[in-house]
Amino acid sequence: MFYKIVIEQFSKSLTNLSQILEKTAKQAEAKKVDFTVLLNTRLIADQFSLLRQVQIACDTAKLAAARLAGKEAPVHEDNEASISEIQERIASVVTYLKSYSQIDFDAAADRKITQPRWEGKYLTGEEYLLNHAIPNIYFHITTAYAILRSNGFEIGKKDYLGELPYKI
Amino acid sequence: MFYKIVIEQFSKSLTNLSQILEKTAKQAEAKKVDFTVLLNTRLIADQFSLLRQVQIACDTAKLAAARLAGKEAPVHEDNEASISEIQERIASVVTYLKSYSQIDFDAAADRKITQPRWEGKYLTGEEYLLNHAIPNIYFHITTAYAILRSNGFEIGKKDYLGELPYKI
Repeated sequence: MFYKIVIEQFSKSLTNLSQILEKTAKQAEAKKVDFTVLLNTRLIADQFSLLRQVQIACDTAKLAAARLAGKEAPVHEDNEASISEIQERIASVVTYLKSYSQIDFDAAADRKITQPRWEGKYLTGEEYLLNHAIPNIYFHITTAYAILRSNGFEIGKKDYLGELPYKI
Repeated sequence: MFYKIVIEQFSKSLTNLSQILEKTAKQAEAKKVDFTVLLNTRLIADQFSLLRQVQIACDTAKLAAARLAGKEAPVHEDNEASISEIQERIASVVTYLKSYSQIDFDAAADRKITQPRWEGKYLTGEEYLLNHAIPNIYFHITTAYAILRSNGFEIGKKDYLGELPYKI
C-alpha cells in the first residue's frame, strides 16, 4: 500500500491543492486581491503562512517517497514568491513522485527512517508513514485550505477530496 | 494495513484530539473563557464549528471501521454541548474502534463501500480508505486544531502528531 498512498494518493492530494490555489487565484483576481497577499496570510501570527504550508506539504510528500525508497530527494530552495512559482513547485513534486514504481517500496515497511532532528532515533517505514507522513501532509494541505476558506474564498470539501473513483 | 490505519492510527489521532481539547480547556479556564463559546466557534460563518468538526472526525473513524469490516456502526445523536460530553463522544469511539481485530478487515480491500449520498455508486474498500476516510479524518481534526490555534491557544504540531514510537 506504500506506492498507492505515497505516490498515487499524495500526488492526487497535491494536485487537489494546486486546483484549490488556481480556483482561489481566479476569485482573488475578480475581487482585485493580489494573491501574494494571500500567500503571506496566516491563521494567526505565530503559525506558518499559506506559502509555507504549501511548501511543507510538498516536502512531506517528496521526503516520504525518498526516505521510504532509500533514495535522495531533490532539493527545493523555498524561494517561491508568486502563485505561478508555487504552482511550479507543486507540479515538480508531482512529476518527481510519478518517477517512482511499485518495486521502489518493496523494502519500505521495515526500512529504518530517521531525520536530523530525531537525534539518531528512528521509526520503521510503516510507523513513519502512518504516524508522521500521512498526518503531516493532510495537516498542511488542510491548513492551506483553512487560510483560503477563512478569507471567504468559495472552496469546499469536494475541492479538497478531489474526484472519487466511483463505480456503478 | 487496514487495521493499523483505521484502528490503531485513527484511535491515536482521536486521542491526540482529545488531549488538545483537554489542554486548551485548561488554558481557557485560566483565561476565564467559557469553553462552550469555543465549541461554537468557526473559522468563518459558513464552515462547521469546533464541536461539529470533532463530531465528524469521530464519525469518520467509526464509519470507516464499520464499513470496511461490513458491520453496523453504533449511532451517536450529535447532541453534545459541553467539553465533557464531547470528550465522552471521543472516548466512546476509541473504545468502539478497539473492539475490532485484524481479521475483521480480511476482506476490506475489495469490499464494496457506499453511502446514501453516493446514489448507488461505490468505491472499493481500499479506494474508500485512501481517497475518502484518511483525508477526511485529518481534515476535520486539523480544522478543529486550526479553530483553537487561531484563537491563540498554545498547542503545536507535536500535540497533533502525538508521541512517535521512536527506536534507538
